[in-house]
Amino acid sequence: MDIKQVAKDTTRVLASYLTYQAVRVVVNQLRETNPGLAIWLNGFSTTGKIQDGEAYLEELLKSNHQELAFRIMTVRQHLAEEVTEYLPEMVRSGIQQANMGHRRQYLERITQLNISDLSSYPEQEADPDKESG
Amino acid sequence: MDIKQVAKDTTRVLASYLTYQAVRVVVNQLRETNPGLAIWLNGFSTTGKIQDGEAYLEELLKSNHQELAFRIMTVRQHLAEEVTEYLPEMVRSGIQQANMGHRRQYLERITQLNISDLSSYPEQEADPDKESG
Repeated sequence: MDIKQVAKDTTRVLASYLTYQAVRVVVNQLRETNPGLAIWLNGFSTTGKIQDGEAYLEELLKSNHQELAFRIMTVRQHLAEEVTEYLPEMVRSGIQQANMGHRRQYLERITQLNISDLSSYPEQEADPDKESG
Repeated sequence: MDIKQVAKDTTRVLASYLTYQAVRVVVNQLRETNPGLAIWLNGFSTTGKIQDGEAYLEELLKSNHQELAFRIMTVRQHLAEEVTEYLPEMVRSGIQQANMGHRRQYLERITQLNISDLSSYPEQEADPDKESG
């Protein structure tokens, strides 16, 4: 398991994801100040293209709206500064909790399966009106 | 800009990405110990399905190879512990450097455009054999 390579790949994925989030921020800002440009940027930023944040920015810098690329770069740097410090704890505890949830669900399911296996045996019905004692 | 929501969304994306990396680790381990199972897991883990790590694990837990889901959960928790602490610094400096790179490339390109604009003016050709002085 090549931890270093995983860290590198994860960094690249994260940078691209923050670029995508920065694009969303800028599109939302433009909706109020320049709706036409918001539509243009939204159309330019198709999901396929934005998978690789750096290639996306390169292409945007070659378009007629380079200023948007500079704006997105500023926003993604800001997001990286604001968001990344919380990530280690959030991801670790998120994965831990999700793992526990999956294990619990699995146990519940196999327990229910066993109960329904049992209930296919001839059963004694409890009479709620009858109290023991 | 809703930083809290961005942090939450980023955590989910990151957890799914580490699940994908964990699947790769397990497939590679199985290739040596149980090649048939490696092929099965590889086939089960299509890109579309693995976009949502939790839905993927849920489905795997309902398959005939639940033990693989438990193994992937253990590996992704290990990856989260090993990798996430380096991410804040790597992502911040990665984005900073990438931004600088984009700005430099852009400046180089517009400078070259200006030079080629100038060279379209009538030019004096230098004769390499003629020395001045």
